[in-house]
Amino acid sequence: MKRKELVDLIFARKSFLCVGLDVDKNKMPEHLRKEEDGVFLFNKAIIDATIDYAVAYKPNLAFYEAMGIEGLIQLRKTMDYLHSLEKPAFTIADAKRGDIGNTSQQYAKAFLDPNGEFGFDSMTIAPYMGADSVQPFTVYDGKWVILLALTSNKGAFDFQFLPVEGEKKLFEKVLETSKQWGNEENMMYVVGATKADMLTDVRAIVPDSFLLVPGVGAQGGSLDDVCKYGLTKDCGLLVNSSRGIIYASTGTDFAECAGAEARKLQEQMSQALKHYCH
Amino acid sequence: MKRKELVDLIFARKSFLCVGLDVDKNKMPEHLRKEEDGVFLFNKAIIDATIDYAVAYKPNLAFYEAMGIEGLIQLRKTMDYLHSLEKPAFTIADAKRGDIGNTSQQYAKAFLDPNGEFGFDSMTIAPYMGADSVQPFTVYDGKWVILLALTSNKGAFDFQFLPVEGEKKLFEKVLETSKQWGNEENMMYVVGATKADMLTDVRAIVPDSFLLVPGVGAQGGSLDDVCKYGLTKDCGLLVNSSRGIIYASTGTDFAECAGAEARKLQEQMSQALKHYCH
Repeated sequence: MKRKELVDLIFARKSFLCVGLDVDKNKMPEHLRKEEDGVFLFNKAIIDATIDYAVAYKPNLAFYEAMGIEGLIQLRKTMDYLHSLEKPAFTIADAKRGDIGNTSQQYAKAFLDPNGEFGFDSMTIAPYMGADSVQPFTVYDGKWVILLALTSNKGAFDFQFLPVEGEKKLFEKVLETSKQWGNEENMMYVVGATKADMLTDVRAIVPDSFLLVPGVGAQGGSLDDVCKYGLTKDCGLLVNSSRGIIYASTGTDFAECAGAEARKLQEQMSQALKHYCH
Repeated sequence: MKRKELVDLIFARKSFLCVGLDVDKNKMPEHLRKEEDGVFLFNKAIIDATIDYAVAYKPNLAFYEAMGIEGLIQLRKTMDYLHSLEKPAFTIADAKRGDIGNTSQQYAKAFLDPNGEFGFDSMTIAPYMGADSVQPFTVYDGKWVILLALTSNKGAFDFQFLPVEGEKKLFEKVLETSKQWGNEENMMYVVGATKADMLTDVRAIVPDSFLLVPGVGAQGGSLDDVCKYGLTKDCGLLVNSSRGIIYASTGTDFAECAGAEARKLQEQMSQALKHYCH
């Protein structure tokens, strides 16, 4: 999905919500745990209930890999379902990959290739190995790298805030350097919402880039702050919520409750788009 | 596999060779490309031909994921085969994962759990997200984290050599900080062989830890230099060769040629163990 399509989708649906499909079988409603395609059926119900309020879906690869090969079959079915829908959605492989050039090419093929198993629009990438570990993901037309810049976990403080080259912090250096590898049409950044005021520093370096903001909801970030510091004139944000939506209820009403939670966020987002974006 | 078992294996086999199973269908011998289980059969033949000269096998996940779900089935068969052998070998999932705590737990389950799909002894992990992204991999008894410290690619110079906190380089800070997360019994480090003299700086921080050294062979590192700067009294090294062994020939003699290449490296390693390790 190209940038213009994504922006149009956001303003049409009045939402920049991304639903994180971090499916753990043990947290799914009991009646689905025994089903052969339970994980897919769970995702399908969540997607059906939220697609009017969300513009993106982000399966976290770890949760599918932890279920073994069967988990990846459930993921493929989920992606096939998303691709079959008339209502479009931006898809993110939350995979946090990154390796030397020829290996990153293989990861890009695995997740982004339109003829591959999944055909995601984008995937998350770790920056530690530098240019040749990231660039192979930018060669597919209309596909995106989402580079880790500032994450929302406690461990983010171990390295990402280290001062490098004087006053600059490592995550700022990552943002700056990465501008040589891609542009606003093929590169987004992960920026954790638990540090919403840091978005000002991020926007000083990448004023127009899309930011994927995890950590609203269970991880504790404030949506108001994220909007205030992060929104650009054409939005420039995808804000993720995982557990707060998909586990809003663990009963048979899980999809209905997920839809209601997504709708609440969408209503806030609709207001914010009206207020900040022109 | 616990550290003592690994060290004993190294001195019994007089080798610290790791064979990188980075299998690309297009580079496999023609007669195997059409076979249903061609990738597994390729790996099996490579393993059979090299196991007397190698102590470790390192499938690179990207290459299997690029083949889709079928690739992971081939990987599972390969792992089942390795586990079935009477001759032991240390296994490494070259996966370069790392995510927030609850997600890293899922990755650990996917690759290290003895009841999981693959049951690797170890896996490679990216450090950018800090403590809680790494620690979930250290909780399985006899299993290992192999943390990226200094990689052998060109992009390594983008961030890993940045000066942080004065004179220190980022990779040195990663090594130092990581000592709070694990020890010589459950944590190794990736250190690229293209910068063999840097091993002196690495050994100053982690004198006794095992180092996984990629980049000997196709990536251009010198085994002599790696031995000189990296070996400890109980070895402390796993040196990887991928393409130099598995694609030594693309004909029907591929396994024989792989065995011959592995044997050459093993002979050098046997001399080095005699010379440096007591």
